[in-house]
Amino acid sequence: MDNKKKISESEITPYLTTRGLIPENQETPIHFLPFVITPTEYFFQRNHFEYPEIDQESFQLSVSGEVLNTRTYTYDDILKMPSKTLVIPLVCSGNQRKKFKPNVFGIQWTDGAVSQGVWKGVPLSHFLEDVGVKDTAIEVVFEAYDRGEHKGTEEIINYARSLPIDKALHNDTLIAYELNGRPIPYEHGFPFRLIVPGWYAMASVKWLKNISVIDHHFQGAFQTIDYNYYPNKENDEGKYPVTTIQVNSIILQPLGRSILGRGVHLIEGIAWTGVGTVVEVELGINDKWYEAELLIDPIQPYSWVYWSYVWNIQEKGEYQLLSRAKDSYGHVQPKEAFWNREGYGYNAIYEIIVKIE
Amino acid sequence: MDNKKKISESEITPYLTTRGLIPENQETPIHFLPFVITPTEYFFQRNHFEYPEIDQESFQLSVSGEVLNTRTYTYDDILKMPSKTLVIPLVCSGNQRKKFKPNVFGIQWTDGAVSQGVWKGVPLSHFLEDVGVKDTAIEVVFEAYDRGEHKGTEEIINYARSLPIDKALHNDTLIAYELNGRPIPYEHGFPFRLIVPGWYAMASVKWLKNISVIDHHFQGAFQTIDYNYYPNKENDEGKYPVTTIQVNSIILQPLGRSILGRGVHLIEGIAWTGVGTVVEVELGINDKWYEAELLIDPIQPYSWVYWSYVWNIQEKGEYQLLSRAKDSYGHVQPKEAFWNREGYGYNAIYEIIVKIE
Repeated sequence: MDNKKKISESEITPYLTTRGLIPENQETPIHFLPFVITPTEYFFQRNHFEYPEIDQESFQLSVSGEVLNTRTYTYDDILKMPSKTLVIPLVCSGNQRKKFKPNVFGIQWTDGAVSQGVWKGVPLSHFLEDVGVKDTAIEVVFEAYDRGEHKGTEEIINYARSLPIDKALHNDTLIAYELNGRPIPYEHGFPFRLIVPGWYAMASVKWLKNISVIDHHFQGAFQTIDYNYYPNKENDEGKYPVTTIQVNSIILQPLGRSILGRGVHLIEGIAWTGVGTVVEVELGINDKWYEAELLIDPIQPYSWVYWSYVWNIQEKGEYQLLSRAKDSYGHVQPKEAFWNREGYGYNAIYEIIVKIE
Repeated sequence: MDNKKKISESEITPYLTTRGLIPENQETPIHFLPFVITPTEYFFQRNHFEYPEIDQESFQLSVSGEVLNTRTYTYDDILKMPSKTLVIPLVCSGNQRKKFKPNVFGIQWTDGAVSQGVWKGVPLSHFLEDVGVKDTAIEVVFEAYDRGEHKGTEEIINYARSLPIDKALHNDTLIAYELNGRPIPYEHGFPFRLIVPGWYAMASVKWLKNISVIDHHFQGAFQTIDYNYYPNKENDEGKYPVTTIQVNSIILQPLGRSILGRGVHLIEGIAWTGVGTVVEVELGINDKWYEAELLIDPIQPYSWVYWSYVWNIQEKGEYQLLSRAKDSYGHVQPKEAFWNREGYGYNAIYEIIVKIE
């Protein structure tokens, strides 16, 4: 018989929010976590296929295509190369999909398809310099081990994505092998995962198998069919690819539709962007805007920004709370998100309603 | 270094959905579980206060008030009494609160504040017969160990609820000590929990401390302020207490807003009611109604009913799927839920939209 006397607060933990099991899709309990680094076990999981088999062969990486010397690197080779450690939020392009009006189809992510980790790896540029990229190079293709039927085309394919050669050569585009100080967990791409700061997370290919430099635009289904903005419901006109993360912010606490007492409340949130840095977060309270206090890490420019606002409220009633972030390129969260058929890149001003009793 | 080769399907598990940590409020991942008995670790958790301290004193239960002989029963006494084992769904009265339009305040439960367990215990009637209930008895009050500030009144109180004497004397109202074949876990009310079949779960008081028979109507805050239907937003007119579970059904799979291929799909769900039994579940597909197949357990009349429908769909497009249950008293899920300010008893026809590609 269990004689335990009392569950202490520290024993109460949040959980991932399940959106699907096969393939596994789970959301980070973002509103209930410490705000700087997402603990590894709480990283959101977004899979297109069942988990791949990883064997000895997976512990090497070849770089081929439009290069002077095709080369294959072993796991040990890679660990010996000069590395870089970056704090990077991974943001699923479908994050907040559930909020689009009119509603769209697909996994109904709320706020938690975003997690921030400490990623360690070797800049991809190091590999590309090593093999020597030919002048004919236009893109670099990253093929993964996970494989299955692509829903739209009904073809069996490996997950694969490309980057333009400039983005591939960017110093902070990494072939990562560590997350939060440990080898990347299997579910998150072990042994090698591409990490592309500033781009939505579909670009950060897990379980890397091959890297190949090509002299044309990659035509894979996850590049040209999925992960595109389709502005029209009925046709594909005006479509364009999902790339850079749009400026965004969310209120972490209080929760939407919660009932609070009168007094002082700390309103807290996070904000991020894909180009430059977040420079301002404003908090709207019933149509008046106030400046939130930002906690910026000057050493980690990709890191999301924690923000807070001390709210002293004595009057009972319903209050609309908004958060609106601005980045160093002048991008500001819009009042309404850009509607697109597949529901990517939601970044409207964050809104909750709370009640003071 | 982790050399694990592949995560098998059986290793992928759903999680509770976190709605709050202090006090702990977590939702069952109802769409991702086997449908008969909710495994204990997936039971939804709904707390009003922090967890109480349980000590040796908690292992006894006194019955007092309008009785001929006040008595105190030890844990061992109770285990020796004649017991009953019932399969009972516990349904939080706030389940599906998030669906009310206009939106209401409070914990934004979706579909998972409902779990079904095998509860073993002693009928409360056995205790009441043993002590001898006086003719003056009107209600029985159940006081719990958990304690804290009641939000509305700002008073420090123990959680407490009452039952009318008839419901208290019902053969299936239990003083439970086992859930799913084990002592009730601490989070779910160890050592004793009242189990009231057919009533919303606020009646099934956890961490039972005292039982007292009274000659008047109990006026505790969780009886007369909370857990009442308030039909009006601006005043308390027409309020009445939350008691019996209303007939309801949900579609478990497929998930709302999911994208499916053409072909045969099994549409599955569960249905329950507070009086009588579920006798019919209809599935609506774009405004046409079809009879779902029911799996009824004739031995466990309180058990929810699993239902299914085989859907053969060859035409691409968007489809509205509805489920509507009917019980043996003729109650049918309404088109719109009865709106009430605190958001209790949502039971509108369940609706999802899916896309066939």
